[in-house]
Amino acid sequence: MNFTQRLRETQRRTDSLLCVGLDTDVEQLPTSLRRDARGVLEFNKRMIEATADLVCGYKLNLAFYEALGEAGWKAMRETLRLISKDLISIGDGKRGDIGNTSEQYARSLFDELYFDAVTVNPFMGFDSVEPFIRDESRGAFILALTSNPGSKDFQRLKTGTRPLFEAVVRAASKWNSKKNIGLVVGATHSKDLRRIRKLAPGLPFLIPGVGKQGGDLQSAIQWGCDRNGLLGVINASRSILYASKGKDFASAARNEATKLRDEIRKYQDKLFAER
Amino acid sequence: MNFTQRLRETQRRTDSLLCVGLDTDVEQLPTSLRRDARGVLEFNKRMIEATADLVCGYKLNLAFYEALGEAGWKAMRETLRLISKDLISIGDGKRGDIGNTSEQYARSLFDELYFDAVTVNPFMGFDSVEPFIRDESRGAFILALTSNPGSKDFQRLKTGTRPLFEAVVRAASKWNSKKNIGLVVGATHSKDLRRIRKLAPGLPFLIPGVGKQGGDLQSAIQWGCDRNGLLGVINASRSILYASKGKDFASAARNEATKLRDEIRKYQDKLFAER
Repeated sequence: MNFTQRLRETQRRTDSLLCVGLDTDVEQLPTSLRRDARGVLEFNKRMIEATADLVCGYKLNLAFYEALGEAGWKAMRETLRLISKDLISIGDGKRGDIGNTSEQYARSLFDELYFDAVTVNPFMGFDSVEPFIRDESRGAFILALTSNPGSKDFQRLKTGTRPLFEAVVRAASKWNSKKNIGLVVGATHSKDLRRIRKLAPGLPFLIPGVGKQGGDLQSAIQWGCDRNGLLGVINASRSILYASKGKDFASAARNEATKLRDEIRKYQDKLFAER
Repeated sequence: MNFTQRLRETQRRTDSLLCVGLDTDVEQLPTSLRRDARGVLEFNKRMIEATADLVCGYKLNLAFYEALGEAGWKAMRETLRLISKDLISIGDGKRGDIGNTSEQYARSLFDELYFDAVTVNPFMGFDSVEPFIRDESRGAFILALTSNPGSKDFQRLKTGTRPLFEAVVRAASKWNSKKNIGLVVGATHSKDLRRIRKLAPGLPFLIPGVGKQGGDLQSAIQWGCDRNGLLGVINASRSILYASKGKDFASAARNEATKLRDEIRKYQDKLFAER
């Protein structure tokens, strides 16, 4: 089964577009946990237990694990083991390098760590992306228009009459012969989301930026999803993970995740009649 | 001392522009070594012993270590310990993410692993680069025009009248208030190298692609260096590491490195009269 099908079925089965981003910052752990990689793993375990029935998947931000060295890498691997095989795991590392090096990154993320999907930076072009899309069952979300302020610096530069991010979207659609490519589009760009969905009607979109970063949820769902109200992956990290710093951090996270999952469903019901 | 000064002094003292790329592939180790992370570390140790007096620094390609998981990360850390503090170590991970995440990558590479410089992907703009240039003593080589075939896919797209890579070069020059930004420019693009040097006369250039990838060495030195024949970092990986697969692999690597270092010096003498 190709990645796009798998994501669609997972979202249908879980009735959720929500993805919790385990960008677990050791400095932000509740005071009841150790401030080291073991604390991070324990925190992730509690987060996953508290939210596993509310989500279609989890996204692990590699930077936060790498900052803890080998112990962090181990905590990432052990966190992955705690995620049910029925859900989608995304390795958010935004890798990309010349072909023989991207091959090593793909090996690291798909074979050594066993993520279902990854995020990929397209700046180095096709041979830097290709190793991540060889296996149709594994997905690659290619950065198109990111949620941060710097997205304007290059992604919005006009190439010909259209901005660079559109060239990326067109290329990604062209490369998608195995139906395992998706796009990263920040929820902070509501107007562009619509345009990008028009250019790539059948691609999964990974959409960060609805929580802490202030992106608009309704347009994230309206244009992040395909015509059936699926394939939009709505990621929230900080707003859920750090909903409370007290001992109730897990139940506070569950409350936040439930609220967001339900709000997403409400928009799905409103926007996609045939759902 | 800022990174650009430090690089200049290191190249002057070592009288070498050569950087050996420790892109150590466990599958390509000599048969006499274990095919695991310990074998990689042993190989690196032999490479460093064989070439330390010939180079201005070493570049470690993170992908090859990550492919081995925690053990690979440890081998990377232990390899870094074997590199003299008098030389430049470059963590080649091509990272870049939203501000709070790039901060974690910077922590990983500069504080946890202690590289002197890193490579950075500029696609996500200024806030994705900024955490890597906060400390003037640490360098960030920003991808401008990479050595691989895919460099044509986006880096050469016209933004206005000039290609995207020139917009990156201009931005990098503008961001360089601490004199610790460099550029990655593939030796496979001789003509563009000249143009990029013109746009960024004082920046260090990290230049891959002279060995296995077939880039032109003379133009790499002519335009990779500043007017004093310095600040070009000529990287070679596979052509040196895998010069021989037999028991003589270390001496074969030394021969290759010596040949390349001397060839570089010859061009420096020819091209930079005041040297």
